[in-house]
Amino acid sequence: MILCDIGNTTLDWYIDGKLSKQRVNDFDPKEHTEQIYYISVNAKLSSLLKSLDNWCNIEQFVDWTKYYSTMGIDRVMACEAINSGVIVDAGSAITVDVMHDRQYNGGFIALGLRSAQEAYGKLSPALAKSFNFEVDLTIMAKNTPDAITVGFLAPLIDKIKSLGKPIYVTGGDSKVLAPLLGDVIVDDLLIFKGMIKLIEKVD
Amino acid sequence: MILCDIGNTTLDWYIDGKLSKQRVNDFDPKEHTEQIYYISVNAKLSSLLKSLDNWCNIEQFVDWTKYYSTMGIDRVMACEAINSGVIVDAGSAITVDVMHDRQYNGGFIALGLRSAQEAYGKLSPALAKSFNFEVDLTIMAKNTPDAITVGFLAPLIDKIKSLGKPIYVTGGDSKVLAPLLGDVIVDDLLIFKGMIKLIEKVD
Repeated sequence: MILCDIGNTTLDWYIDGKLSKQRVNDFDPKEHTEQIYYISVNAKLSSLLKSLDNWCNIEQFVDWTKYYSTMGIDRVMACEAINSGVIVDAGSAITVDVMHDRQYNGGFIALGLRSAQEAYGKLSPALAKSFNFEVDLTIMAKNTPDAITVGFLAPLIDKIKSLGKPIYVTGGDSKVLAPLLGDVIVDDLLIFKGMIKLIEKVD
Repeated sequence: MILCDIGNTTLDWYIDGKLSKQRVNDFDPKEHTEQIYYISVNAKLSSLLKSLDNWCNIEQFVDWTKYYSTMGIDRVMACEAINSGVIVDAGSAITVDVMHDRQYNGGFIALGLRSAQEAYGKLSPALAKSFNFEVDLTIMAKNTPDAITVGFLAPLIDKIKSLGKPIYVTGGDSKVLAPLLGDVIVDDLLIFKGMIKLIEKVD
């Protein structure tokens, strides 16, 4: 089975158990003749692929009564992958979603690590510091890098931990966030697992 | 007593019990011949005022062993105003500081409301929404405006509440944040109260 998660700048492929990335600019759909299942947040590519018979958009198989209409399809797929638990997708934004017995209990969207650091830097040159991921998030800070790190991460980490277990972490910054969250399951395949579950359900 | 809190774009005056604002561009120090006590984060104006005898920079009276050297002077003044409690200064950044028996226990810096909303908007047009201050921050969200509001505010509000009481709220967004924090003391004079306490101590 060939799966593709199409973003605005990159495509994530899952082919024969292997992950790979491709830039949108390097992508030519005519190079592919096999059956491909995909999700997409890229409106331009979605409308192009609609006319190609071998490209199947999985979005149509989602029971949208469980979710909300403007919810990102990648979040929905990660939710479909699990029965109960908390999902943290740490990418350009950090999305947090709660599932209970296959029902969607809602979620929230925090800024991503890079986005937050950029926003601090925009506020003042004094705050244009990198986060200190070694800092103890349980105590108050007494220097600027620690103050912005604790200010952004401590509230978020506490909140996520308060939502229950198990916690699944995925996305580009999963390796950075996971140690701060403690006992979690890092799973870079979560979105693809949700896609596979959905495809098998409708097959 | 005339007090002035000098920022990068505005000056906040406290004269005979009355607050007023002035734009930095409209400010001419030579218009003032009276004794003025001030704090400043505006390096350009600080160096200009240093040469004027009637302008007294209160920063020199601070016992900096209690704080840290790069800590904003406005945060230090708010800390000087109280003996014990949590101070939330909701401006372009939201600073949170903890005092216990006149000792500084540290703090953190979160993004300000406007800064956070701008950062969401930069991530995606889909997230360029205004925060919904009517949302219930204790539950997970099921639409985009609520998801970014809960994502930014719920962790922060929870964290501040966990730090103890009383909670003092000051700054331009104090009226917006205070209701979310519950039982708090809104005090727009906190920084000036700290300045007065410090002046009286050295007099």
